[in-house]
Amino acid sequence: MPNSFGHLFRITTWGESHGPAIGVTVDGCPPRLPISAVEIQAELDRRRPGQSDITTPRKEADTVEILSGVYEGQTTGTPICMLVRNTDQRSSAYSEMKAAFRPSHADFTYQTKFGIRDPNGGGRSSARETIGRVAAGAIAKKILASRGVEIRAYITRIHDIAAPAESLADFPSLEQIEATAVRCPHADTAARMIERIKAVRAEGDSVGGVIQCRVRGVPVGLGEPVFDRLEADLAKAMLSLPATKGFEIGSGFGGSLLRGSEHNDLFENRDGRVRTTTNRSGGVQGGISNGEEILFNVAFKPTATILQSQSTVDLAGNPTELMGKGRHDPCVVPRAVPIVEAMTALVLLDHWLRDSAQNRSFEF
Amino acid sequence: MPNSFGHLFRITTWGESHGPAIGVTVDGCPPRLPISAVEIQAELDRRRPGQSDITTPRKEADTVEILSGVYEGQTTGTPICMLVRNTDQRSSAYSEMKAAFRPSHADFTYQTKFGIRDPNGGGRSSARETIGRVAAGAIAKKILASRGVEIRAYITRIHDIAAPAESLADFPSLEQIEATAVRCPHADTAARMIERIKAVRAEGDSVGGVIQCRVRGVPVGLGEPVFDRLEADLAKAMLSLPATKGFEIGSGFGGSLLRGSEHNDLFENRDGRVRTTTNRSGGVQGGISNGEEILFNVAFKPTATILQSQSTVDLAGNPTELMGKGRHDPCVVPRAVPIVEAMTALVLLDHWLRDSAQNRSFEF
Amino acid sequence: MPNSFGHLFRITTWGESHGPAIGVTVDGCPPRLPISAVEIQAELDRRRPGQSDITTPRKEADTVEILSGVYEGQTTGTPICMLVRNTDQRSSAYSEMKAAFRPSHADFTYQTKFGIRDPNGGGRSSARETIGRVAAGAIAKKILASRGVEIRAYITRIHDIAAPAESLADFPSLEQIEATAVRCPHADTAARMIERIKAVRAEGDSVGGVIQCRVRGVPVGLGEPVFDRLEADLAKAMLSLPATKGFEIGSGFGGSLLRGSEHNDLFENRDGRVRTTTNRSGGVQGGISNGEEILFNVAFKPTATILQSQSTVDLAGNPTELMGKGRHDPCVVPRAVPIVEAMTALVLLDHWLRDSAQNRSFEF
Amino acid sequence: MPNSFGHLFRITTWGESHGPAIGVTVDGCPPRLPISAVEIQAELDRRRPGQSDITTPRKEADTVEILSGVYEGQTTGTPICMLVRNTDQRSSAYSEMKAAFRPSHADFTYQTKFGIRDPNGGGRSSARETIGRVAAGAIAKKILASRGVEIRAYITRIHDIAAPAESLADFPSLEQIEATAVRCPHADTAARMIERIKAVRAEGDSVGGVIQCRVRGVPVGLGEPVFDRLEADLAKAMLSLPATKGFEIGSGFGGSLLRGSEHNDLFENRDGRVRTTTNRSGGVQGGISNGEEILFNVAFKPTATILQSQSTVDLAGNPTELMGKGRHDPCVVPRAVPIVEAMTALVLLDHWLRDSAQNRSFEF
Repeated sequence: MPNSFGHLFRITTWGESHGPAIGVTVDGCPPRLPISAVEIQAELDRRRPGQSDITTPRKEADTVEILSGVYEGQTTGTPICMLVRNTDQRSSAYSEMKAAFRPSHADFTYQTKFGIRDPNGGGRSSARETIGRVAAGAIAKKILASRGVEIRAYITRIHDIAAPAESLADFPSLEQIEATAVRCPHADTAARMIERIKAVRAEGDSVGGVIQCRVRGVPVGLGEPVFDRLEADLAKAMLSLPATKGFEIGSGFGGSLLRGSEHNDLFENRDGRVRTTTNRSGGVQGGISNGEEILFNVAFKPTATILQSQSTVDLAGNPTELMGKGRHDPCVVPRAVPIVEAMTALVLLDHWLRDSAQNRSFEF
Repeated sequence: MPNSFGHLFRITTWGESHGPAIGVTVDGCPPRLPISAVEIQAELDRRRPGQSDITTPRKEADTVEILSGVYEGQTTGTPICMLVRNTDQRSSAYSEMKAAFRPSHADFTYQTKFGIRDPNGGGRSSARETIGRVAAGAIAKKILASRGVEIRAYITRIHDIAAPAESLADFPSLEQIEATAVRCPHADTAARMIERIKAVRAEGDSVGGVIQCRVRGVPVGLGEPVFDRLEADLAKAMLSLPATKGFEIGSGFGGSLLRGSEHNDLFENRDGRVRTTTNRSGGVQGGISNGEEILFNVAFKPTATILQSQSTVDLAGNPTELMGKGRHDPCVVPRAVPIVEAMTALVLLDHWLRDSAQNRSFEF
Repeated sequence: MPNSFGHLFRITTWGESHGPAIGVTVDGCPPRLPISAVEIQAELDRRRPGQSDITTPRKEADTVEILSGVYEGQTTGTPICMLVRNTDQRSSAYSEMKAAFRPSHADFTYQTKFGIRDPNGGGRSSARETIGRVAAGAIAKKILASRGVEIRAYITRIHDIAAPAESLADFPSLEQIEATAVRCPHADTAARMIERIKAVRAEGDSVGGVIQCRVRGVPVGLGEPVFDRLEADLAKAMLSLPATKGFEIGSGFGGSLLRGSEHNDLFENRDGRVRTTTNRSGGVQGGISNGEEILFNVAFKPTATILQSQSTVDLAGNPTELMGKGRHDPCVVPRAVPIVEAMTALVLLDHWLRDSAQNRSFEF
Repeated sequence: MPNSFGHLFRITTWGESHGPAIGVTVDGCPPRLPISAVEIQAELDRRRPGQSDITTPRKEADTVEILSGVYEGQTTGTPICMLVRNTDQRSSAYSEMKAAFRPSHADFTYQTKFGIRDPNGGGRSSARETIGRVAAGAIAKKILASRGVEIRAYITRIHDIAAPAESLADFPSLEQIEATAVRCPHADTAARMIERIKAVRAEGDSVGGVIQCRVRGVPVGLGEPVFDRLEADLAKAMLSLPATKGFEIGSGFGGSLLRGSEHNDLFENRDGRVRTTTNRSGGVQGGISNGEEILFNVAFKPTATILQSQSTVDLAGNPTELMGKGRHDPCVVPRAVPIVEAMTALVLLDHWLRDSAQNRSFEF
């Protein structure tokens, strides 16, 4: 279970950062979906290292291989296993880190929980684990797109540099977002963000930021009343990503500053269907999508790995100093954009299938 | 699945607001725990309506009955079913609401998803559903307490009235929190919050706020590396509560304003074990508890039901006006405090059992 | 989990034999199904004690109460909780059994596993637990019937008295089966079975037998290729019933006496669709229903409770004698017929919903 | 879900017979278990084709590669992915089979359910899928063996040739079973079985048989009271194997011919603990292991692929003849022996972990 996600469109990821390979198995995929490794690869390329001058200079092609579940270019309804071989395994760069716990990393907790850990490149705690999520998410995205669902994530803030609210009023295009290495749709802000990331990197430091994700074209009815509310599953999906510290949907934390009379989304009949005049709900009411845009924010902390000396303890608990080495992202947020989209797609498709099963299978 | 929560300590809730009863079944409870209805009732009394002059004046005793799984005062390891009969069913107060969709409520989405809904008092979407969570959480809390785990939730902000940060430095006592009807541990702030809630109620309006939850005594090792990270499951648990809009752990959204060198929690040897000098991680690193205090915030929107006229549409989609009636909480946050604690206990105990199974069953 | 069954149409049962009540919660039921307590009761009446002169003379009406999930006579898509109060609690009859382990009962294993057990009437291990299964199964049966699926279980053998094979060639009607207290469709055999059961009871002894279950009207496509094969889930469902010792589908154990050339079901085009000329597969091929009749047998051991003195040990492990008391079925098989049907319905409906979700939700 | 098995020790298999690879991911494995590919390979070698002169002459080495979850020879508690490349892909041999449905195979049901299938070598329905089960089972077996659990499967009957009951009185050694290609511990019977298999193969026909599995060293307490009874999960595990038609535990179908007074297992104090004088229960009472030998039988039908011409229909439903080709096992039962053991190990270990979680984590 710990390495599986979803109920009906269910993925299981496996693999360590510097092991032989990283991969994912997708179970429950609808059959006859045309899919190719090229399409999966396109999404993986958006998350791979070395894609721009503000990401880690590590060069890994992260080439995906489909091992099962696809026959003559179509899914067969059986599990789809996808694998990426690890090629850039400079374990020596990490040798010092084996002996001490890196601050704000998973070293200490993994070692204590399991009594053993693969220290190379963080092992299972490495963000390379998300390769499997992005590969599986590419399939989910394509299925959802066939029904008109568009998922768009982008950066709204890096460190304290935020895109102006008005620049985010419209649903941004993929081109707008991919136009800059930092994936902020507002060009001027993007330029300043990139500058900040470079400046911080020059100091061996790191920064975090906020990703916003919007989805349009979602039908009314996805999500469940109680525990599996759509926002609950989205929150879990996002907080399951490395380096995330917060999630808010619609009005979010700011919504608690409004009165009910200011916050409520009034219903009206627009475009021939029931719509809300505002969208403080963020597209979900009572745990179920209401047909409006789904909109949520995810907070990312600054990368824990910094190229500075830090106090810590070794495996025996004795104080020591650790100097970060290796080639790391001074800011993981730009590469996290496709990962947020992938997880969103996985949640939405899973709920789509669940809704179909319970509510569209029988008419009485 | 939609009405179940947890993998090993698994609860299933059922019941509508104005149906015959509301209840919960707890499956997987460790045997031989001494437990009585009186202990469950004590937690239910903290969430019941009519408990103070700032909650709904509805009077429901919410008396719990244990129907199974307990023999001679001890759990037997078989499912524990607990039931609360609904006594105050003034459905007439809701009759108008049957015909129109209440803004920012679940009426529209339930009706569209299922093609039918129980409109009385919100049916399944009522916050009365949380009775089952609190009853089950009372059991989980007692089990955790037997190992020294303390869970404490309280209000840090109502509308724009926030407790001063320094007043929250220490782990508050239960007495401090229960001292006021609003469950904010800072007495002066609590008084102002109560005043605000009363003022807003007088205007037929509502407000929201923020609950903070802290847990101490959690051992290192709870949580899973990937999808079932402890913070991911906590986020899901919180966003599964009615009226929640956001979740953040440790440094949260604010953490993204810091640099890595400012944000990292350095390790040291303190009190004979590995500790961190700061706790921006909020007690979780790499998805796994690190033995520090778990600390997170949950945002609640203002109550959707307000005693004002609002524009909406009827079931046919025609514009209409709806005047809120009935007896409602002008602010649900104070009564949500025990619910947040209950969900926290459910998450922690489930992960405790999971960790025991995988990591404490075999020695090689 | 241990007390839940099914993935999408998921039931959770709870309750002890002599506790306050026995019940079940059904989660994931399709909405808008017309259903009433009367329909549920009809199935429960087929399994209740005291229904004929060959069952236990205990008189329990087993009256079902629907507590949630049904509004104005239709399911709402939210969990359906159904409860039966226990009325006939003659615990004194069992007092001796508290002190010693009844042979071939669950006393010893429960006590050792949990360190505690509710000994009254067997507690959770009582066959009264199946009340919840039958109540939930009644709903599943009605849903399946709306698509033309008919499930028919009946007795083919009691002790060594077996119905002649030719008498079972046709799909028996419900009337045929319910015509006798023993639920064997062949009247002459039924009479001999009843005689045997009475004779055995007179000696304070018990007998077992075999139930056959057939299902017609199942579409091609239910079941999953690998672990969740239809016959695997049916086998689990049947072996989860008290007193069952074996399961076989289609040709079963006898099939292993044939050669492949004798055993294979040849395909032909009949009635305008692909059919098999024989049905040694029992309606399932490759784990998936093939549209032919599903046919399987379930073996039941003789009732463990006999009114004779038996050697056993007490809780301290000391040898003792135990004389069975109380009012018991000398043969549980007749009352197990509706239970077998209920479990079959639960398996088939769950797979129907799963198939809908994966294979009927998207067209590419 | 359809391709996953187990709750806490959870495996997910993937891969088609003639695709690039077959594999399995094991989630929830206890950490620090010493394990190597060599140990996994030893079990795989017992199921691989071409291992003797009564199996298919196909030569596939089925060499396993461990891709994750093992560090310096020990499990790390993270998912273990194991992969076997398919090397012998003579798809041309199957070309005719693409156009017609092979009798008693999964062709028709897969095609109808999914609207597509990989026809090469049966695709996902091939018994090659069990490679993943055996690899995962090898790990489970080693863990169980560390606590003294021994699992032994063997053949008791091929076609109508059965080993004499007395030859099976004692728990057979692995050596006894592996002494002959047919894996029947009684040498004389084994010789006759081999002769029969060869004779049948010479006629282009096939036969089935019965596997018995025994487990000793299982502690009291594995299994759950209701749906997840140990025998229910074993039955599901066995019926999830290709070609199985029946399962019986302990006295099985024959048990229904006895009276209660003959069938009950009396308790006694033996060897300082509570034992039963007989074992008609087959080691499980009330769904929970009682410390006696677990003993069950599994029926296998004759191999569906025979080298004879058979009537069938093509994909359009038109009558046609199909002549079996390719290199097939005239009897799959000998190669199924390690698979039965693997599935048994998976069930037992999963229940061991579940029991630990609920019943061994807390003392009150």
